[in-house]
Amino acid sequence: MFVGLSAFPLTPMYDDSVDEKAFIGLIQRLVNAEMDSIGVLGSTGNYAYLTREERKRVAQIAVQHAKEIPVMVGISALNLRDVLLNAEDAQTAGASAVLLAPMSYQQLTEYEVYKLYEVVTSKVSVPLCVYDNPGTTHFNFSDELHGRIAQLPNVRSIKIPGVPMEPQAALDRVNRLRTLIPKHVSIGISGDSCAASGLNAGCDVWYSAIGGLYPEVAKSLTKTAREGDKQEALRLSKILTPMWELFYRNGGSLRVVAAAAEIQNLVKPPCLPLPLRALEGKERTELASLLSSLELS
Amino acid sequence: MFVGLSAFPLTPMYDDSVDEKAFIGLIQRLVNAEMDSIGVLGSTGNYAYLTREERKRVAQIAVQHAKEIPVMVGISALNLRDVLLNAEDAQTAGASAVLLAPMSYQQLTEYEVYKLYEVVTSKVSVPLCVYDNPGTTHFNFSDELHGRIAQLPNVRSIKIPGVPMEPQAALDRVNRLRTLIPKHVSIGISGDSCAASGLNAGCDVWYSAIGGLYPEVAKSLTKTAREGDKQEALRLSKILTPMWELFYRNGGSLRVVAAAAEIQNLVKPPCLPLPLRALEGKERTELASLLSSLELS
Repeated sequence: MFVGLSAFPLTPMYDDSVDEKAFIGLIQRLVNAEMDSIGVLGSTGNYAYLTREERKRVAQIAVQHAKEIPVMVGISALNLRDVLLNAEDAQTAGASAVLLAPMSYQQLTEYEVYKLYEVVTSKVSVPLCVYDNPGTTHFNFSDELHGRIAQLPNVRSIKIPGVPMEPQAALDRVNRLRTLIPKHVSIGISGDSCAASGLNAGCDVWYSAIGGLYPEVAKSLTKTAREGDKQEALRLSKILTPMWELFYRNGGSLRVVAAAAEIQNLVKPPCLPLPLRALEGKERTELASLLSSLELS
Repeated sequence: MFVGLSAFPLTPMYDDSVDEKAFIGLIQRLVNAEMDSIGVLGSTGNYAYLTREERKRVAQIAVQHAKEIPVMVGISALNLRDVLLNAEDAQTAGASAVLLAPMSYQQLTEYEVYKLYEVVTSKVSVPLCVYDNPGTTHFNFSDELHGRIAQLPNVRSIKIPGVPMEPQAALDRVNRLRTLIPKHVSIGISGDSCAASGLNAGCDVWYSAIGGLYPEVAKSLTKTAREGDKQEALRLSKILTPMWELFYRNGGSLRVVAAAAEIQNLVKPPCLPLPLRALEGKERTELASLLSSLELS
């Protein structure tokens, strides 16, 4: 399941609760588009803003509605105790894999992060994906640490935050990591604007935020790149440049994807947990035009 | 209560739960040393790592054992909904004030942070202290934003992360902020190594991590500075330089203060919530010698 396209849907909120009906609708779009896997409770799924009970329920709903598609569930928390409880809940819900980031409030040391993965991988009974996202966790993995963690039992994939846009530099980045990790551990690209570069450089899977809302677009790009048509993959990504620019200007994909889902009535506004806010004003108008000109729906 | 010395104790953990007995012991030390106020569930109190129920209980215990000393309770959370629930719990427990940081997972915008304080200050019925700690929240307040938030109802203090060590630069920093905020809002220094500089530059209060464990030492320094003996305050701080250096080398005060409490049997090891770890090895040995040479107990 750690190959191809893994789509990360929002967890839409409404009136301080998870909007379960809207969430089921988002899952069904991913099922209809035959994703290789679905990743719930990633950063796009706002895992960090939800209670244990809400996360348990989200995992259950996702597994119930994903049919044959394997579901990976985010289990990250600040406290190791809570990570283990989330892992238990995810497994009970029927998760095919779990996703773990070294979420931090106090800056973590390399040793603390290694021990975190050591404990969690020794306790889970499903595969685990290491989630490297310094933009939200404020922890920077060294390649050497990735190598050591990837040797731990149950680790099957690493979700990396991005690669350089220049093809040779991207290839060097992926190859360097590849030399340090076992063959059975896949490398997944996230940071949607880098997806074509990452897949072209040999990443096995795209962990995609935009794919969580627009699975067909992400699927075409992934298929093209994995079939080896690098130029066409780059062309498909280039069409989305105005979208990547909106992401860049708004601190990442979340506020943009949330606004897109609201604009297209896939979720009720406001769908983000306050204090977070989806795009407003001029940026939102620009996004609406863009969705229309790109024929995204 | 937003003047003088405000001591921030650890919330000691043991076996994945709050060690209530040890916590009461820490509060009693602060009561015996007659602190001006006690701040529980700050960063030193590991608020971010605890459940709502645990935080409620910590607030109750602190208020019960603080006798006449006012207790400020940290209410920060990623989700505004949870901040408001924490505020309700703190007030029900008898908190004299609440402390709110713009905790983040997704980077927050200035507008989101302003709206967060606007909502919370409109709902609380006790004074609120704005907690500015970019090292853990990854949000940088502009002075202008501090000025706007300080005008909101119920805001009575701002806990700033530090000031420059150079006296004139520290004075400029505090004065600049002072021109932007109302007279009834006090400025408090945190970052213990800057405390003498901050108090000398006119900060009204020291929000102190070391004071949460060694209240007498922090009290002497605060008293001296507030009586206007700047040189003596700096001398008292200078004696603690090896401690400030341990803080600096270990990502802040938490792991050091936790190890000190463990070494002196004030809490049971390990007292931090994993994956966080108190000082180990060589650094811990160095700390033990330091406590002994400084006659801290």
